[in-house]
Amino acid sequence: MIYTEIENLTAPIGVFDSGVGGLTVLNRLLKVLPEQSYIYLGDTARVPYGNKSKETVQQYALQCSQFLVEQGAKLIVVACNTASAVALDYIRNLIPIPIIGVIDGAAEVAANVTKNLSIGVIGTKATIRSEAYKKAIVEHSTKEVSITSVACPLLVPIVEENWQYHPSTELIIAEYAKILHQNSIDTLVLGCTHYPMLKQQFMKEFPGVTLVDCGQSTAEIVRKIVPIPTRSNQETKDSTTRVEFYITDNDSNFPKIAQTFLGFEPEKIQTIDIDSVNKTTN
Amino acid sequence: MIYTEIENLTAPIGVFDSGVGGLTVLNRLLKVLPEQSYIYLGDTARVPYGNKSKETVQQYALQCSQFLVEQGAKLIVVACNTASAVALDYIRNLIPIPIIGVIDGAAEVAANVTKNLSIGVIGTKATIRSEAYKKAIVEHSTKEVSITSVACPLLVPIVEENWQYHPSTELIIAEYAKILHQNSIDTLVLGCTHYPMLKQQFMKEFPGVTLVDCGQSTAEIVRKIVPIPTRSNQETKDSTTRVEFYITDNDSNFPKIAQTFLGFEPEKIQTIDIDSVNKTTN
Repeated sequence: MIYTEIENLTAPIGVFDSGVGGLTVLNRLLKVLPEQSYIYLGDTARVPYGNKSKETVQQYALQCSQFLVEQGAKLIVVACNTASAVALDYIRNLIPIPIIGVIDGAAEVAANVTKNLSIGVIGTKATIRSEAYKKAIVEHSTKEVSITSVACPLLVPIVEENWQYHPSTELIIAEYAKILHQNSIDTLVLGCTHYPMLKQQFMKEFPGVTLVDCGQSTAEIVRKIVPIPTRSNQETKDSTTRVEFYITDNDSNFPKIAQTFLGFEPEKIQTIDIDSVNKTTN
Repeated sequence: MIYTEIENLTAPIGVFDSGVGGLTVLNRLLKVLPEQSYIYLGDTARVPYGNKSKETVQQYALQCSQFLVEQGAKLIVVACNTASAVALDYIRNLIPIPIIGVIDGAAEVAANVTKNLSIGVIGTKATIRSEAYKKAIVEHSTKEVSITSVACPLLVPIVEENWQYHPSTELIIAEYAKILHQNSIDTLVLGCTHYPMLKQQFMKEFPGVTLVDCGQSTAEIVRKIVPIPTRSNQETKDSTTRVEFYITDNDSNFPKIAQTFLGFEPEKIQTIDIDSVNKTTN
């Protein structure tokens, strides 16, 4: 993959998601690239993208990207599996800065770590239907792999309800897991940004299986292409001051969920009118 | 409540919802007003409304209503609890035909049927947060009533997954039911259009409790204000030919869910661009 050269090294990294899920990706970015500044955009007015058509998601992703470019982002992380699955090439053709999705890195890790060549992928309906992980894993595999994909639409509301430890959650995960066990997977891609919040539950359901967190692998890709600043530029800032937060609809739950997903509550969250961002550029 | 006079009696009744849930209301309308024609609009591009701000839901509801007026509707049923809770007065001020929400009728029934004056209300987060049912029940009550409201965000995805009979569903309903049992409710308002699909599960969890279906009570209100046509106008049409279906985003699941919710699969579903409908009229 060839990336456009990053011109302004001190500019922030733009990150967007349909809502709060991308905060788990931001969390990993803050850890892997601790010297960078970030702009996070949660498209809370139009969440979720998972049940929208490809064309609609492409328009939404383009508007989010344009907003981040207007704010001076040097690189955009599409911290949303649905948008990464269906809109990445579309926005890459229209936006002049590097665009990194959350699928490719996780697919590469999964292809590299599987030993028995049986990989599971879980995600929203749209992500699974797109077969984006399947295609990316096949591209990164040198041998023939078996890939079992399962859509798990109940897991996002469980995380947003904070019901990770409710007895029903175990039953729901066990139901989704059935076919993954039947196919003896040794590697499971958590193909939705909410799912790292259920990591303990997955570890219990899938003992011995390697869990691949798309946020972690994406952060590692970004680390490879964003140069580490020289010591003079390298300020040691607190996470809370290194992120500007924007949402597209006033959501009173955002600060609370951000606290859970990030470990700190955003100091200031600005609400923007995403429809005022130019709708089509082509 | 004073309704504008209905001028064109043979015109269709417009029904809109954020997605598929309103189909349970349409189902009741088709049964209670079998001689009428209908236009159903599912705003599938922007579903769900439940986590959007009041202002956003008002704009969306206005656009849906304007579309139905443009299609010649004589009356609009807002078959969406969130929009009924936060946008009814707003669109009534801007749209010149009668607008019926799903909350008032159910609230009146609940106020009339409770014997121990302890009523439960379940719905999405937005509906519960709006306190619209609570206010409407108090308005219709002649005595002081105790109202227990519980937001149940997992129930919509359960219905859309068709997991009504999964063991986790019983646990989830039991969790939401705890506080309703503690307060010894004798009447439960199903304040979300998806919930009638879980009626059997609620009957099991709440034996002896009267369940109030907002679709049924809304259909009965509409019956009171739409005159029964004279015999010459009263054609006996099949349900399948009496509804025109529109959605705002191409959703391949719509026909399947419509089949489950309505008992028949729509013959033709047209996709419209809701953003092309004039955004503000004031």
